[in-house]
Amino acid sequence: MTNSEFTESVVTDGNAGVIDGVRLGVAQAGVKRAHHDDLTVMELAPGTVVAATFTRNAFRAAPVMVAEAYLEAAAGSPAYLVVNTGNANAGTGAAGRVAAERVCEAVAWHGETDAHRVLPFSTGVIGEPLPTERLVEAMQSAFGNLAEDNWPRAAAAILTTDTRPKLRSVTLTIDGTPCRITGMSKGAGMICPNMATMLAFVATDARIARPVLDALWREVVDASFNRISIDGDTSTNDAAVVCATGRGGVDIGDSIAPAYEPFKDALQQLVIDLAHDIVRDGEGATKFVEVRVEQGATAEECDQVARVIAHSPLVKTALFASDPNWGRLLAAIGRAGIEGLDVERVSVSINDCLIAEGGARAASYTEAQGVAVMAEEALVIRVLLDRGDASASVWTSDLSYDYVRINADYRT
Amino acid sequence: MTNSEFTESVVTDGNAGVIDGVRLGVAQAGVKRAHHDDLTVMELAPGTVVAATFTRNAFRAAPVMVAEAYLEAAAGSPAYLVVNTGNANAGTGAAGRVAAERVCEAVAWHGETDAHRVLPFSTGVIGEPLPTERLVEAMQSAFGNLAEDNWPRAAAAILTTDTRPKLRSVTLTIDGTPCRITGMSKGAGMICPNMATMLAFVATDARIARPVLDALWREVVDASFNRISIDGDTSTNDAAVVCATGRGGVDIGDSIAPAYEPFKDALQQLVIDLAHDIVRDGEGATKFVEVRVEQGATAEECDQVARVIAHSPLVKTALFASDPNWGRLLAAIGRAGIEGLDVERVSVSINDCLIAEGGARAASYTEAQGVAVMAEEALVIRVLLDRGDASASVWTSDLSYDYVRINADYRT
Repeated sequence: MTNSEFTESVVTDGNAGVIDGVRLGVAQAGVKRAHHDDLTVMELAPGTVVAATFTRNAFRAAPVMVAEAYLEAAAGSPAYLVVNTGNANAGTGAAGRVAAERVCEAVAWHGETDAHRVLPFSTGVIGEPLPTERLVEAMQSAFGNLAEDNWPRAAAAILTTDTRPKLRSVTLTIDGTPCRITGMSKGAGMICPNMATMLAFVATDARIARPVLDALWREVVDASFNRISIDGDTSTNDAAVVCATGRGGVDIGDSIAPAYEPFKDALQQLVIDLAHDIVRDGEGATKFVEVRVEQGATAEECDQVARVIAHSPLVKTALFASDPNWGRLLAAIGRAGIEGLDVERVSVSINDCLIAEGGARAASYTEAQGVAVMAEEALVIRVLLDRGDASASVWTSDLSYDYVRINADYRT
Repeated sequence: MTNSEFTESVVTDGNAGVIDGVRLGVAQAGVKRAHHDDLTVMELAPGTVVAATFTRNAFRAAPVMVAEAYLEAAAGSPAYLVVNTGNANAGTGAAGRVAAERVCEAVAWHGETDAHRVLPFSTGVIGEPLPTERLVEAMQSAFGNLAEDNWPRAAAAILTTDTRPKLRSVTLTIDGTPCRITGMSKGAGMICPNMATMLAFVATDARIARPVLDALWREVVDASFNRISIDGDTSTNDAAVVCATGRGGVDIGDSIAPAYEPFKDALQQLVIDLAHDIVRDGEGATKFVEVRVEQGATAEECDQVARVIAHSPLVKTALFASDPNWGRLLAAIGRAGIEGLDVERVSVSINDCLIAEGGARAASYTEAQGVAVMAEEALVIRVLLDRGDASASVWTSDLSYDYVRINADYRT
């Protein structure tokens, strides 16, 4: 029997997020705009084990290709991560790859390691050449302030159109031994259907073997970041990385070790919360919406219905307007392409308000109830298909004027 | 050898659209709002042959179910079509079906025919009970002004949030014999991904056998209205109807008759133009965009890529901003899920401007060119996949502030 408990918090004080074996350095390279932090270096202690998931978009940005190759070349144990904002180095062809490698070389030179032990990440405008030399020149400044308590500054430096940092930390105790996990993320596209680059960097002082961390991370990401985008990972630059320094007292061992489940639970919760932070800070978002589809024949069909609802502009504008336009919800369910769906068995509720059943407005439903429930900022749209036991959720936001403004103005 | 030619025009003068055997009556039932035409009756001469395509949404509105059943019951030869705007009679369950039947009965009473020879169509708000009695009461007024030259008034009466009527007519001569086709449509949702109700009513004085008209209409609709929506037909109420009165001198016979091809060409052109009219009048649309994908391995994969581009909010907001953000185009192509796509062979142009090739910005491309081409109102986004001979097009519009405003305010 394992005794464990954990406490999670949003980190504002750097000390709260410290992970033994990780130091962060931040600098102003002038890539995003003048006098703003836009370059972050994460230094990982020797022996740190790293797992990562990358975008499944066929157009993968140069840094994604380099990071994936270098992670393999470093046998899952890189020495540095380097992140720039302001430029995604995507759609830049062979020159983009050279540029990403050049940035890694600059980090390696300062860090006295090999370039292939540095993983590069970029986010920002697509299709513009990466201003490599500015990043190279700013590297010394980033190395100059490497510090364990630099998480808050780093969490701000990786942002693009996000309005606030997303930084959380968990302190976990397993059989009396403390363990810590700290993570930061950025997002800020309308979280569907084709999100802006999602980046997440999580670190822990636990000790975990590479194959265990790989499998665990894939599972955790599937239940979190992959639930806030339409087709799994869809931007050219998406990446989610976890680093285990092994400097703490907790050894996760393999997936049947007693510490595994408590650690996984804490990590999963942290990462779901980081994913939710991204949705809450979606471009122009005024609502946080969980679309939960239950009683499906398979999890896949539940997922399909949930995503069609979550990505319907008509549903999303109704959410923005706090308009209980449940007809748009029914229309979205109906076009999800579910074979043999009997619409007369479908019911829909929002929070505690049953709005539709039997393919029509619920007898108990009143417009006043709908207006009241839609005025809330956090909504759970719950769809019961009444054809099985499977379920799936996705998280999304509404579609507002500001979404159009932000994306119409992004490069101007 | 068949000699044929045709001239198509936008109809403003009712005489120009007259189809022998079709009369239209319009009334104000107070369903949409007070003192606005919202009820239209189309009277079809005996012997008229009708074909129709209906939405594939699993939630089909009551009038769709009734119209489909009655079209069969009338053996493809109904006597009346009846259309109301302001209320879609969708998501209204069994009561909605009774309401639709009641409206047909009222038409049948005035027209001295059977209810099952009347096809009902509704568009407007989803989920509200149809105010049947208002429609029944206004029926006498609609019958009171049945006239052959009432097409312009009818084309205005079937609109919802459309800003202008869509009414076109073709005069066709086949071996010296004249034939006419007139059609009207309404749309006005953002034309993708889940369009507001699309309705189209086309009539011709040609004589065509039912199976020939059925097959021809399906083909024509697939190449037009189904190219402006994401999943084929997606609203709860979509319907496109063609009526052949047989009162003119042209007999189309079967598909190997000499008149078939010229007639099909003219009909196809008219219906494509009605579909384009819907896109041009899309909610808040400021651009008319053809997304044309060529050199695919199959038409299906071309279609898939075209639809992902056409439905990307990031692409659509960039179009609204006249921002040549071609990186968003590449990202959309990359996430279309095309197996084995070699992004380094993909090229993209907008109108006559080559913007990307080899998976990156074209060497010849300048931002000034991009800005100039994006300022145009009509854009052709052309994607070459360089992996085959297949191609597909879809037509779409941009995503503007007004789209959000219209859809956020729709019911308020």
